[in-house]
Formats: sequence, C-alpha cells, structure tokens
Amino acid sequence: MIHPRSPPRLDFFIESPFGGMTAALLLRAVESHPDRTGDPIALTVNFTAPVADGEFDIATTLVRTNRTNQHWQAQLCQGEPVSTTATAVFGVRRDTWSDTELVAPSVPGADEIEPGGLPDMIAWARNYDMRFVEGAPPSDDADPSASSTTTLWARDRQGRDLDFASLTALSDIFFPRVFLRRGAMSPAGTISLTTYFHVDSAELATVGGDFVLCRARANRFSRGYFDQSAEIWSRAGDLLVTTHQLVYFKD
Amino acid sequence: MIHPRSPPRLDFFIESPFGGMTAALLLRAVESHPDRTGDPIALTVNFTAPVADGEFDIATTLVRTNRTNQHWQAQLCQGEPVSTTATAVFGVRRDTWSDTELVAPSVPGADEIEPGGLPDMIAWARNYDMRFVEGAPPSDDADPSASSTTTLWARDRQGRDLDFASLTALSDIFFPRVFLRRGAMSPAGTISLTTYFHVDSAELATVGGDFVLCRARANRFSRGYFDQSAEIWSRAGDLLVTTHQLVYFKD
Repeated sequence: MIHPRSPPRLDFFIESPFGGMTAALLLRAVESHPDRTGDPIALTVNFTAPVADGEFDIATTLVRTNRTNQHWQAQLCQGEPVSTTATAVFGVRRDTWSDTELVAPSVPGADEIEPGGLPDMIAWARNYDMRFVEGAPPSDDADPSASSTTTLWARDRQGRDLDFASLTALSDIFFPRVFLRRGAMSPAGTISLTTYFHVDSAELATVGGDFVLCRARANRFSRGYFDQSAEIWSRAGDLLVTTHQLVYFKD
Repeated sequence: MIHPRSPPRLDFFIESPFGGMTAALLLRAVESHPDRTGDPIALTVNFTAPVADGEFDIATTLVRTNRTNQHWQAQLCQGEPVSTTATAVFGVRRDTWSDTELVAPSVPGADEIEPGGLPDMIAWARNYDMRFVEGAPPSDDADPSASSTTTLWARDRQGRDLDFASLTALSDIFFPRVFLRRGAMSPAGTISLTTYFHVDSAELATVGGDFVLCRARANRFSRGYFDQSAEIWSRAGDLLVTTHQLVYFKD
C-alpha cells in the first residue's frame, strides 16, 4: 500500500550515519597502511550494525600480496561488536588495451541545472552540491514512479579535490531507490556496498573538485531487499567507478 | 595488438580452477553452519591466490546476528596461505511491495538453440549444458567484437536441481569478457565476485533442474582490469541473481 500523503517517516534516515563516509574511512585506513601498494581496484563494505556517534577503531589486515595486487581486510569496531567489515583489493595498473563499453548518459551540463539536494536535516547531504537531472527525492505529495533511476551532478561543496576516499563516499550518495518507486520515504538501509575503481590516482587527480555525474537504478525489489547498480562519470566522460549495493527496506 | 591467427593461449584457462565452484563451497560452508538463519542475500568472494588440486580447509565466522539478517566471514586455506576470502549476508525475507525493474532479455528458447560450450579441455564447463544465444567463445579465427555481451541458457548436465550453491557457481559461468572484445583468448582471472540473491529457497526450488538464462557484459576495460555485470533469470522470467565481478587481464 502506498500512502503518499502520510507524513514521511524520516527519523531513521536523518539519524542514520552516511554509509559512504564509513566506507571511505575503511578505504582510507587501508590506503594509509605503510605496506599498501597500488591504487584501489575493488572494495566491498558490509554494514553489520549502525555506527554510533563517538569513538571507533579500525583494524586492517593484509591477507596477501601478489605480484600486481594486494588483498586486505578491514573492520570498524566501537567497543566489542563489529560495526562494519570490508575487503579491499589494491593493484598496480599496466598499460593494456582499454575501452569503455558502458555508454555515458547524455544530459544537460551541471551549470544548466538548479541546485537541489536531500532534505536539509540530513546532515551529510549538505556536504554536496547536488544537481538532479532526473529522479530527485520525492516530495511529500509525490506519486510512485515507474523508474527508480536517479541521475545527478554532484561535487564537494567546499571544492575539495576528489581522492579515492571521497570517490568511495560518492558511490553511496544515492538515497534508497524504493523512495522513487513508492513515491515516499520509508525505512531502508544499505547492507552491502561494492565499488570497482576504473582510474588510478593520476587519472583521478585530473578531475580535481569538478562535478561528477552519478547515476543509479535498482534491478529487483524482492521481499524486503533490493539491489542497486550505479556509475560515476567525470565531466570529461571518463567512467570513474561502477558500484553496486544490496539494500534492506520496509514498506 | 590483436593476433587473431596466433594459437590461443589456453593453458592458463584450462588449468585455472573454476572460481564459481570455490565461491559455491564458501557459501555452502556458511549455509551448513548450525547457527545460520535465513537464506543468502549477498555474497562477495575475493580470490587471493589460485586453489591447487588437493585438500583445503574452510573456516567460517559469524560476525553478527541482527533481527532479520546475519553477517558471516569465511576463508579457504591450503596450509598457511589464505586462498580465498568471503563475506556473506544471510537474511529472512518478508512480504513487501515487490517489483522487477530490470527487463528480461527477449531471446529464443533453450530448445531452439544448438548445444554449445567452452573448449572441451576446460573440465568444469563440461558440467553444464550451454546454449549460446549471443557472444559464444571466440573461435581461432574470430574477429574482435564491438560487444562484450554473452547471453546463454545453461543447466546442470546431470539434471540436478538448482540450490544456492549451484546458483552461486552459475554466477561465474561466463568466460572473460575481454575474449569477445579482442576476438581471442588471453590470460584473465576473476579477482572479486559479488552476487545478490533475489529469491528464497522455496522460490528457487520451483526452478528445479531447468535451464536458466544468463547474461553478462563488461562496463569498462582499463589498464589491466575490467568489471562485469551479469544476471540470471529463470525460464519463467524471474530474476534469480544479479552478480558483478572485477577481473584481471593481460594483453
């Protein structure tokens, strides 16, 4: 059942920590380790419990170093229980045949779109300048949409340059796809987030603090869970990241 | 450079273990644990080193049990070095609003297509009855293809019913996408594999040992790595799995 006129149940969403920040912290912890070699290739973060306000510890373990890549595990704890686990692959890139097969979205430029955003009380979202091309968050009187796709330009509001940590955070910038399909907000949260990186640090540096184009869609909503696939493009048309997540939701 | 007439370098591929089998073993190890509740929701497997012929041990750890889901870690070892790590989320499904947004491929039925397959010396592939709709493995004189998409019907050659372990193995049934784009086989191997499950055990049981429709494509090939996104559909048109992987390749 859909209740487009009932008050949006936002509490869960306002109070939830930003999973992208947690993922970025775990990636940065590995990146900062003295034994780390190469750039991030793949990251999977499992959100096992909410991260509470306050101190936390991150532990990293180097599982194996191969000739061109490294496998890491990391976890974030607050006291005894583990809040978040992660696995990361770092690697050295070599010049090979290369091609981007995914087609970049054809959209208006960031400068042609009014700034939008998530509701103001969602603290983390205020860190971003967001320009929605399609699929903005549903308003209080929104109808259900046939599409779960959101496409937006986003950049750091302070103009900070992109690095792998902030790119990781961006891979979780999308509000839950079920909001669009139901035309209303409802409890939902990422359980597992996987991000594949397609550029090295030198290529990423060329993006600077410019807008990047982010697009996400769901594939199947099924009995309390849905999956999301997304991509992030530079303004120059380079595919920086493909990222996928499994999300828990309630009606 | 492309050398379509040079002898295919198949050794690496013939001798490689089937990552899908390793992933299936890790999932089954968690599934068999007496503390496991619910069905698989998400699985990520990182292939840190090749699995050699011979004995192996799998260790599983329950990280956390929440009200409706569980987080697990697992690893496969042969002696000291860790060969494979995995994280798995299991969960209880509840009746909610549901919808499949991804559009099922429109293809000829399995019975209308001649049996195909991978080269006969690839032992694991002989376990499957494969019917290629498009994107069959390149022949010795193949040209590069503009598309990395493969769509095939597949079923267990012995007619065994699908379960979550065999569904996990199927999520790695695709030969490396770079073979199609280059028109030739070359060294390549999965580094990280993530699978999202969209059905519970009762729904999966209805598929039995029937053909399922598997489709995969790459998004970006970049300096030694590419990512693949894939899906598996039942003959009745239910999206059983979406699955993604990051693959290492050499020219």
